[in-house]
Amino acid sequence: MTAEIWDVVIVGAGLSGLSAAHLLRKRNPEMTILVLEGKDRVGGRTLSMEIPAANGVDCWDFGGQWVGSTQTHVLDLIKELGLETYLQYNTGKKVHHMGGPNARVRIYSTSIPLLSPLVILDFAQLLWKINRLCATVCVEDPSRTPNAAELDSMTLHSYVEQHAWTAELKEELGMCSRSVFGIEPAQMSFLFFLMYAAASGGLLPLLESTPGSAQELKIKGGTQQLSEHLAERLGWKNVQLGSTVKAIWQDAEWARVMTAINTFMCRAVIVTCPPHLAAKIQYQPALPSQREFLTQNMPVGHMIKFIITYQTAFWREKGLSGEIVAGSSTDCPFCVTFDATSLSGNAALVGFIAGELATQWSSREDWAKEDYSGGCPVNVMAPGLLTYYHPSLRNPCGRIHWAGTETATQWCGYMSGAIQSGQRAALEVLAELCPTVLTQEEQEAVRRGQTVKAPFKRRQSSWLTYLPSGKTLVISTMTISTAVLLARHPNALLKVKSYFTSGLLNNHAQ
Amino acid sequence: MTAEIWDVVIVGAGLSGLSAAHLLRKRNPEMTILVLEGKDRVGGRTLSMEIPAANGVDCWDFGGQWVGSTQTHVLDLIKELGLETYLQYNTGKKVHHMGGPNARVRIYSTSIPLLSPLVILDFAQLLWKINRLCATVCVEDPSRTPNAAELDSMTLHSYVEQHAWTAELKEELGMCSRSVFGIEPAQMSFLFFLMYAAASGGLLPLLESTPGSAQELKIKGGTQQLSEHLAERLGWKNVQLGSTVKAIWQDAEWARVMTAINTFMCRAVIVTCPPHLAAKIQYQPALPSQREFLTQNMPVGHMIKFIITYQTAFWREKGLSGEIVAGSSTDCPFCVTFDATSLSGNAALVGFIAGELATQWSSREDWAKEDYSGGCPVNVMAPGLLTYYHPSLRNPCGRIHWAGTETATQWCGYMSGAIQSGQRAALEVLAELCPTVLTQEEQEAVRRGQTVKAPFKRRQSSWLTYLPSGKTLVISTMTISTAVLLARHPNALLKVKSYFTSGLLNNHAQ
Repeated sequence: MTAEIWDVVIVGAGLSGLSAAHLLRKRNPEMTILVLEGKDRVGGRTLSMEIPAANGVDCWDFGGQWVGSTQTHVLDLIKELGLETYLQYNTGKKVHHMGGPNARVRIYSTSIPLLSPLVILDFAQLLWKINRLCATVCVEDPSRTPNAAELDSMTLHSYVEQHAWTAELKEELGMCSRSVFGIEPAQMSFLFFLMYAAASGGLLPLLESTPGSAQELKIKGGTQQLSEHLAERLGWKNVQLGSTVKAIWQDAEWARVMTAINTFMCRAVIVTCPPHLAAKIQYQPALPSQREFLTQNMPVGHMIKFIITYQTAFWREKGLSGEIVAGSSTDCPFCVTFDATSLSGNAALVGFIAGELATQWSSREDWAKEDYSGGCPVNVMAPGLLTYYHPSLRNPCGRIHWAGTETATQWCGYMSGAIQSGQRAALEVLAELCPTVLTQEEQEAVRRGQTVKAPFKRRQSSWLTYLPSGKTLVISTMTISTAVLLARHPNALLKVKSYFTSGLLNNHAQ
Repeated sequence: MTAEIWDVVIVGAGLSGLSAAHLLRKRNPEMTILVLEGKDRVGGRTLSMEIPAANGVDCWDFGGQWVGSTQTHVLDLIKELGLETYLQYNTGKKVHHMGGPNARVRIYSTSIPLLSPLVILDFAQLLWKINRLCATVCVEDPSRTPNAAELDSMTLHSYVEQHAWTAELKEELGMCSRSVFGIEPAQMSFLFFLMYAAASGGLLPLLESTPGSAQELKIKGGTQQLSEHLAERLGWKNVQLGSTVKAIWQDAEWARVMTAINTFMCRAVIVTCPPHLAAKIQYQPALPSQREFLTQNMPVGHMIKFIITYQTAFWREKGLSGEIVAGSSTDCPFCVTFDATSLSGNAALVGFIAGELATQWSSREDWAKEDYSGGCPVNVMAPGLLTYYHPSLRNPCGRIHWAGTETATQWCGYMSGAIQSGQRAALEVLAELCPTVLTQEEQEAVRRGQTVKAPFKRRQSSWLTYLPSGKTLVISTMTISTAVLLARHPNALLKVKSYFTSGLLNNHAQ
């Protein structure tokens, strides 16, 4: 066993680790960089695979799939690597089936389902409250959020129980929690939820496929290409697959990164794996208690993604978008589906089984058993962690720097966040090893624990996020509720059609 | 590297592992048993050490210290091993200092502090509610508790916020959470809290040093002796210290327990280490997702125990018991102290820094950095875990059986629970390997996932637990409040002295 010497060793060849390597290399071409990856492939929680389809074998994303137009870090990388995006298909009506197998199936074409006026009003008031709170969140340091301790002391479930009026909305929000985080609302800190939404521009961008939302665009050829292209540019000789890091030891001069058969000595380490897997590495000296406590208690989601191919996209022919929102149950385990028809025309739907049901279904072959991911899409925080322990999520420990999408401040939990976090960690390492390659501004940002990129613009396009105040809120939601109520009674509709000119009503009237 | 063959390998030489070995050996003397321990000593979270004191070197418990008269499993073991107990010194007045460094220091001799009548009434109503809920908890399967999902969806903090009236009581309960669990009330499921209290006979037994409570008795010579005597009886050749288990692999015939340098083949394994450390072992085949999710998300407490020796027990001379209850702050980091004067008369106080403050103080030498404990006193559960994942805490996975005090149903989290859990796991193993040594009743109990020992009697001695109903509650608490109110105005006291004959008032009047 001989020890190789590198400048920087990166643990994890996902988007975060490879983006870090990419930036390090760009800023200092002399730097020797090694990326160690436990899996036998690059890409982490992205995976593009071929499966049989109607017109022959075709490629789909089995991991991270969507990007959005406010996700500047991933969009910049897509552009730099010469890749292209295309819009998620969302034309046509959506299907909504909550309330159990015997409940009514609703068809709607608004951005939120055709619920009863009371539920819509309830949704509007809750969304308004949540967005108001989101606007107060300090994403970089959530403990500085007004009333942080209180918000962090309750679960998302507790907040919704206190502030939602209707059982239907509570069920909807459970579905949202499962489909976004793979986690039941009872398992997540409410402040964490707010921080996560704030890092994405609000709650609706997490849920929708509209412009600026998380499900807006797909990448031609699949998302795993991002990592493959980055590994190509770094040089495959600098990426060691099937190399699980077991231990990281540090002394005054070196960090030693150990796999079962090798030791790599280096000046800096960037650990990018999900927090609960980073916690499994053995560190010497031991990490601070705060860090241990935090990473040992960030539940990772459970989400099973499935892709079903069809002979034809029959739903499109029927004027449906392919989007189904469903109340998960043993009869219908999935919570949401979208059209996944490939660019070459192979018809498909993609869907998710998430939260507690995903753990029940996990006796099937599932993502959680893919080694070195340990669950998906993201680690969340249980109550009482953000306010006490959050700084240790990003604070370097000696020569160890922390990246991974969970450490991001913009689109935390998404591919874009992974890239942001990798770039931030790379700047930290450059500031340690060769500060002269950084601008004054960058050095300052590293010192403050921030990246320099201008914060992205919060999305303001959704009709609900326009609601500026309580008073306007009530008026707006009453109008909307009426519109929806009328839309469900077509005979009444004609009489008042001239009063309503919004896209919302026009859609219904078609 | 050759593989040794044993019937049973036990991971962890704490009370749980050694109790399991002890029972296995008693029931089947032919069985070959190996106990592997990562530390260089037996005893797990018990540790009895000598330190200098006024009259020379003396021994104190730096880990688990107290036992109580309803803790049948540990009392039986103490008797069997020929050890003796003695009462925790609690004679005299107590000191109460909540509300920050400038708040008034109160001296009291009742079982609860001399708070204002409103706070006492508040305490009584909340305790009544909590004890009522405790009585409904199904400790063996908390998901069967009425309203389980709701109780598990909120933190202890959320419940207290909703049901306590006064800021003082909220502060008191924060202190209770820290001193019992080493955890902030924001970090714990309310249902877990109820389950834990129910497993100990109620909330007050967790807090007090009165008969039947958790702080009632100490063991002459220290608690670590229990493990040392058990190891002695098992034979030290069957206990390998400094042997950290890295992996457990199973196939149709064998379980293979691996340390860095050895592989031990066996028919059954009992894993007794705290859940978050059991999660660090590498399992093949992988454990069920539910189990992984559960153990990766059971926060372990942070508690720093300190012992201060004095020339004399000056507090006793002043009529004080040595018990101080304090609102932790940067000025006063501890939350509670007790008299710790040794049997040979060396004066001492024992105290605890707990919860968030303990993590801040952990840059000092502390318990959390003792390898293979990883925190103390116990792992708790974050919200949303008990109802979904609890069965996987004890359900055997193939040849692996789970013990440790966190898996106990009687005095979970205490030494007695550790012993109960070890005995339960031992019975499971016997049922697998040599069922004929078990009675029909025992086999049946194993099949149902229960031990056969009769459930212990719930303690009914504290005056507050007598409160039988809402109506009597109001009358009782009003009486108590009046008593306390009067006690604080001695001039008024004489006038009504004849109305009150309870020990409570008599104490005040002295």
